[in-house]
Amino acid sequence: MNRFRDEDALVKEIARHFLPSRGRKLRLGIGDDAALWQPTPGVAGVLTSDWFLEGSHFLREKHPPDSVGWKCLARAASDIAAMGGKPRCFLLNLALPENATGKWLNSFLGGLRRAARSLDCLLAGGDTTRSERILISVTVIGEIAEGREVLRSGADVGDLLYVSGTLGEAEHGLQVLRKSGGKVNHKNGALRKHLYPEPRVELGCWLAEQKLATAMMDVSDGLSSDLPRLCAASGVGVLVDPGKLPTPHGIAQEAATQLALHGGDDYELLFTISPRKAAFPSQFGKLRLTRIGEITTGHGARIIGKEGNPEPLHAAGWDPFRKRR
Amino acid sequence: MNRFRDEDALVKEIARHFLPSRGRKLRLGIGDDAALWQPTPGVAGVLTSDWFLEGSHFLREKHPPDSVGWKCLARAASDIAAMGGKPRCFLLNLALPENATGKWLNSFLGGLRRAARSLDCLLAGGDTTRSERILISVTVIGEIAEGREVLRSGADVGDLLYVSGTLGEAEHGLQVLRKSGGKVNHKNGALRKHLYPEPRVELGCWLAEQKLATAMMDVSDGLSSDLPRLCAASGVGVLVDPGKLPTPHGIAQEAATQLALHGGDDYELLFTISPRKAAFPSQFGKLRLTRIGEITTGHGARIIGKEGNPEPLHAAGWDPFRKRR
Repeated sequence: MNRFRDEDALVKEIARHFLPSRGRKLRLGIGDDAALWQPTPGVAGVLTSDWFLEGSHFLREKHPPDSVGWKCLARAASDIAAMGGKPRCFLLNLALPENATGKWLNSFLGGLRRAARSLDCLLAGGDTTRSERILISVTVIGEIAEGREVLRSGADVGDLLYVSGTLGEAEHGLQVLRKSGGKVNHKNGALRKHLYPEPRVELGCWLAEQKLATAMMDVSDGLSSDLPRLCAASGVGVLVDPGKLPTPHGIAQEAATQLALHGGDDYELLFTISPRKAAFPSQFGKLRLTRIGEITTGHGARIIGKEGNPEPLHAAGWDPFRKRR
Repeated sequence: MNRFRDEDALVKEIARHFLPSRGRKLRLGIGDDAALWQPTPGVAGVLTSDWFLEGSHFLREKHPPDSVGWKCLARAASDIAAMGGKPRCFLLNLALPENATGKWLNSFLGGLRRAARSLDCLLAGGDTTRSERILISVTVIGEIAEGREVLRSGADVGDLLYVSGTLGEAEHGLQVLRKSGGKVNHKNGALRKHLYPEPRVELGCWLAEQKLATAMMDVSDGLSSDLPRLCAASGVGVLVDPGKLPTPHGIAQEAATQLALHGGDDYELLFTISPRKAAFPSQFGKLRLTRIGEITTGHGARIIGKEGNPEPLHAAGWDPFRKRR
C-alpha cells in the first residue's frame, strides 16, 4: 500500500492514469485552478452531477473497485444521454481514507479510465481530500445541438411509452452480488449490468437528433419511482402493461416483474414517441426497444392489474430518504 | 424540524430557495435529468469542483450553517476568479443526515442563495442523498473570453509577485471561532473573512482582460503551500519578502507573519506581472494589491531570512494528506 506524501502527489497519480489530459475540446485539464473547455459553436452545454458514496451507493467489501470507478462515471453520463446529449468531459471529486490510496485507488482509476475511454469523456479536474469513508462526486459536462434536447416534459396524451434494454436486471445483479462470497463471476449478465452499466448515449443521441422522442429520462431509481417524474413534468398520466415489461431472464415471472417495476440502477432510457411514428423499430443496433405503455390523461402512473383494470403504480424504487435499503 | 418524505421533496425545497431557476444563460435548471447551459459565443467554459465536508472543511458545532452555504460556493468560485473567469452557474451535491434537514438546511440554503446572488451565479442542478455527516460537493461553471485566461504557468524570471487583500486573516478568524463559545461576533473582520470569504472575481477579470497578470492562482491552502505550485507550473523560483506581507491587524508581528505565510482559506489572488508594468496600482477599488516578492531563476519558493539571506520557504499550509489539523 503506497500512501501519498501530500495532496499534490495524489493529484499527480490520478492525472497519470488519464494521459493525455487535453483533447479536442478540453484546452486545459488537471493542474491549474480550473479546467478550460471549448464548447462547439451552436451547441448547448449539458450539466449533471452525481453522488457515489460508500455505504449508500456501493459497498466496499462487495463491489470491486474497478466497478466503482466505471459506475461513478457511467451513471452520471446516463443523465447526459437522457437529454440526448454526448458526454465531453468530467470532474472527479474524490475523498479517501488512507487505506484506500494504494491497491484500491489503482483499480478504481483503472475502471474509471475504461469508462472514460468508452464514453470518449476526458477527465478535466476535480478535488481530492481525506475522509473516513470513500466519497465520490462526479460532474459530467456534455453537449447537445441547440434545440435538440429531449426533456421530461414533452410527453403528450396518446404517446407511446418505450424503454431500452431490460428492466430489473441490475437489481437482480445486486442480489447475486449480495449472495456471493466476494468472488465476482463476470460471465453473469445481470451482475455485469449491475457492476458495469452502459449508458445509452448513442440511442439518446439518435432519438434527439431524429426528433423521435417527445420526452425522455433515464431509469436509475426504478420504473415505479422514475415514471411518475416524467408524468409530473409532462402533466400527463401513464398506463403500463406489466405483460410487456422486458424482464431479466432466468427468474420466475412474478419476481421478474417486481424487479422490472421497482429495481434500480438499470440506466436504460425511458422515452415517449408520437403514435404517428408507426414504424418505430424494436431494436437499435443490438439494443431492444420495448413499448411498455401509453401516455394518458390524468396524472400519475397506473398499471394494468390482474383483473385487467388500471391500478395505481406505487413508487417503490430507490429513494435514500425512504430508507428502503 | 421538518423531515422530507422523499428525495423529490428535498429537491423541491432546494429549488424553492433559488427561484427563478432559469436565467440568461441557464436554459434549464433543476428538475430534469441534467441542466442546459448556453455558452456565450467566443468564450471558453471554466470548470471547477470542490469538496466541503463536515469535520474536514467545517465543524457543524462551530460554523453557522449560513456560512457553510456561503463558503461552499465562494471557494469554488474563487478558482474561476483565479483563471480570470466569471462564474455563471453551479451544481450542488448535498448529502445530509436527517437532523440537518430542518433549520440547518434552511439557514444553509439562505447563505448559499446570498453567495449565488452576490456572484450572479445560478443553481443549475445537482444531487441529494442521505449520509451520516454533511457532505457537500460544488461544481462551478464559468466563462472567459477565449485566450484571456491566466494560468499558473505564465510567470517569467523578473516578474513581480503580487497578492490581493490580506494574508492570514481567515486563519486568524478560525482561531477566534475556535475560542468562541459558539457565538459569532459578525463585526470581527477576521471572523467575517473566515466565514464569508469574497472571491476576487472582479479583480481576476480585470487582470485577465487587460492582460496584466502573467500567472495567477488563488491562495486557498496558504501562501507557503500554494506559491510552490505556481513556481512549479511556471518552471521558476520565487523570493518572498516577509516584511512586505499584508498581514492581519491587531496581532504581534511574528505571529502575523506566520499566519500570512501558512494560514489557509484567504481566497485572495496571487499573481505575477511584468516588471515593465511600472505604474501598477496598489489598490483595485478598495482592495489592496501588495507586491510581496519577485520571480527568480531556479525552482521553489524562498524567503528573505532574518540575516537578509534567502532561505527555503517550507510548505506548511493546509494539506488534508499531511494531517496538520
